[in-house]
Amino acid sequence: MFRKVLVANRGEIAVRVMRACRELGIATVAVYSEADATALHVRYADEARCIGPAVATRSYLNIEALVQAARETGAEAVHPGYGFLAENAAFARACREAGLVFIGPSPEAIELMGDKAAARTLAREAGVPVVPGTPDKVSTEEALAAAEEIGFPLMVKAAAGGGGRGIRVVECREELAGAVAIAAQEAQAAFGDGALYLERYLSRPRHIEVQVLGDEHGNVLHLFERECSIQRRRQKLLEEAPSPALTPELREQICAAAVRLARAAGYTSAGTLEFLLDQEGQFYFLEMNTRIQVEHPVTELVTGVDLVKEQIRVAAGEPLRWQQEELELRGHAIEFRINAEDPEMGFFPSPGVVEALELPGGPGVRVDHALYAGYEIPPYYDSLIAKLIVWGVDREEALARGRRALAELRIEGIATTAPFHRRLLGDPAVIAADYHVQFLDGRV
Amino acid sequence: MFRKVLVANRGEIAVRVMRACRELGIATVAVYSEADATALHVRYADEARCIGPAVATRSYLNIEALVQAARETGAEAVHPGYGFLAENAAFARACREAGLVFIGPSPEAIELMGDKAAARTLAREAGVPVVPGTPDKVSTEEALAAAEEIGFPLMVKAAAGGGGRGIRVVECREELAGAVAIAAQEAQAAFGDGALYLERYLSRPRHIEVQVLGDEHGNVLHLFERECSIQRRRQKLLEEAPSPALTPELREQICAAAVRLARAAGYTSAGTLEFLLDQEGQFYFLEMNTRIQVEHPVTELVTGVDLVKEQIRVAAGEPLRWQQEELELRGHAIEFRINAEDPEMGFFPSPGVVEALELPGGPGVRVDHALYAGYEIPPYYDSLIAKLIVWGVDREEALARGRRALAELRIEGIATTAPFHRRLLGDPAVIAADYHVQFLDGRV
Repeated sequence: MFRKVLVANRGEIAVRVMRACRELGIATVAVYSEADATALHVRYADEARCIGPAVATRSYLNIEALVQAARETGAEAVHPGYGFLAENAAFARACREAGLVFIGPSPEAIELMGDKAAARTLAREAGVPVVPGTPDKVSTEEALAAAEEIGFPLMVKAAAGGGGRGIRVVECREELAGAVAIAAQEAQAAFGDGALYLERYLSRPRHIEVQVLGDEHGNVLHLFERECSIQRRRQKLLEEAPSPALTPELREQICAAAVRLARAAGYTSAGTLEFLLDQEGQFYFLEMNTRIQVEHPVTELVTGVDLVKEQIRVAAGEPLRWQQEELELRGHAIEFRINAEDPEMGFFPSPGVVEALELPGGPGVRVDHALYAGYEIPPYYDSLIAKLIVWGVDREEALARGRRALAELRIEGIATTAPFHRRLLGDPAVIAADYHVQFLDGRV
Repeated sequence: MFRKVLVANRGEIAVRVMRACRELGIATVAVYSEADATALHVRYADEARCIGPAVATRSYLNIEALVQAARETGAEAVHPGYGFLAENAAFARACREAGLVFIGPSPEAIELMGDKAAARTLAREAGVPVVPGTPDKVSTEEALAAAEEIGFPLMVKAAAGGGGRGIRVVECREELAGAVAIAAQEAQAAFGDGALYLERYLSRPRHIEVQVLGDEHGNVLHLFERECSIQRRRQKLLEEAPSPALTPELREQICAAAVRLARAAGYTSAGTLEFLLDQEGQFYFLEMNTRIQVEHPVTELVTGVDLVKEQIRVAAGEPLRWQQEELELRGHAIEFRINAEDPEMGFFPSPGVVEALELPGGPGVRVDHALYAGYEIPPYYDSLIAKLIVWGVDREEALARGRRALAELRIEGIATTAPFHRRLLGDPAVIAADYHVQFLDGRV
């Protein structure tokens, strides 16, 4: 096992990864920007290195500075967390070249699954359904030809996009040519790659994703699914496991499909295969996230598996510690993302000083955060500041516990999404799990 | 279900009970002494009543004031927590007579199991092994006669005692008469009842207790065992589940014995049957605690059952929600009692102001407490201020998580038992689970 790991991230996920390291007896190195000198992840680590100024491109996205910090501190491995460089094959490769273990999949797997069109092709080859659309990157001419077959409305998607970015909905034939031209320009500007593909637009689908774990010995497991349909502008706000929409048969099918595809990709480490589930109960592969995800705790609560520790073990060459049949779902878990955003003001970011902090506790409550009373949240980074995750013996208990825990949570000095979640838990559609990815559209 | 419940207790258990009420949609009434006006349980409740001065006999032990507070606030039921009046049959009866539901067993069951000699007799009748000793209360003459058969060393125990109180160890024949006389006087003074019985003294036994739940429809379940062998002066400090000392066969036997005895006692609500396990693997019934216990969370973490919610449901007349075969052990849990005591000063109480508070979080960590930054812990009551409970997929992970969580816990301004627990987790005997109830004797 590694003796020292550098965590190339900040905020709650940096603390989360360091917790896993501590439990494995591994020393930790934090990195931080000049804006993060007082951050909790810096205090939590055994040692810490400043890697640059506040702007992420010169600190948390600065591959050279990160590799140098790892070398100088004697770290043997690097955990990228999520966001920043977590799905950057060049970073994984730079680690490898510097003699550091990248705690994640191979650069090759990141590249393969990061190319959304290539991932779709691989899915088709593995017998995993994908949303009807063009098989690969298309020219404007090809797009116009394919659109007739796919039907309207359809989506024009950037091959290099992901996380809901780089998507345009086209309602009718007349809009297509213009949309393709603009989307190509936008994709070039946003991702440095103007390649596009088309996909059928599904009405009111649910977002179901399957957690997988692979090791370097050819083993791939699934850890069941999460449902993440409650999204605002394609950003997830609430996630739960298991999905209330899956029958046991459908669960088995979608999880088997995920394992097939992860295996086909030669995938190691923790990864997530995202699917859409339409109203007829047909699922379609969407994309793979080749990293640990924000919502991984819901899976941890219903399976008992510490996903971050498994990532570290697998990266150290250990085989997975479970057989598929040993993994069982138990109870129900829900995660509430607590963002420093004001839901009364269009979710406008609300950085500032946390003047008082009281966290929920008691049975079935987990909080992952990087806060303390007096901490000043800097305005430069993602607004996620805490995750409240609750577990119950069934969904009803998890909802009741979520209400209770949200009532206990007190973060003063800044606006957060907690009041939004409190309202959400009073919504009959949420209580009945009768929602889909467009559920919040036009509401918030 | 009840609409309003009065919680006749303070501290972490009052908050714990109120959390259960909130999740069930029940309004809560806190009671408090004049010394507890700023306590968290008062802030947590929907309404609060002052019931008397700091001294417990005039507040938390004041049956009349409690019943009056329940009546005046319109509460329909009373939860006694643990300690104070939780095992007081007169209080349970006073509630019943006032038209209030006592959330606990019947006064008859409390009386029956509260009489340690009667409980032992019942155990014998139910085929549950008890430590060899006199079957019932004995006179001094009977004690002297019985002692020869039991053998030395033996224990003289107060029939009305419990929780390790009212016990004297007698090493040899010559000491017996004097010990009996003093013990009778002490029992009379401490419990208002001088009745005594004798018991064989077991060397280095383990303390194993079985959690049971009974309803008013004749159903009794066990929720497996807890091991609580790490005690200082018969006060538990660390508890875990499952017991590392039980084989599956022994677990089945001891749990079946507990259910038999609870059934024989006509027991309803949550209760705990305490056993000693000797070095030959023989278990002996010790006594029953007719209440929720401090260490109930370890059982909640390995079974997924919310014991306090079940107590409330059962008191409202609902049947238990499980069949025995549906209950399964999952993983391993350990509780660390965080007392406001200074382990460097002979565990001397250390009340005072909590100047800073940072609680551990992340995977597998639960904290039950009644603290906040700035809270002044009054010197009048039990020194337990928080419970840190960790869960792991196995005992090794639970120990690692315990170390990690204890390192995160920061309570400033007062001394606590946290450093003691940190040392304990470095002890090879604790790591190997090679301990017994006398383990800490002479060490701390």
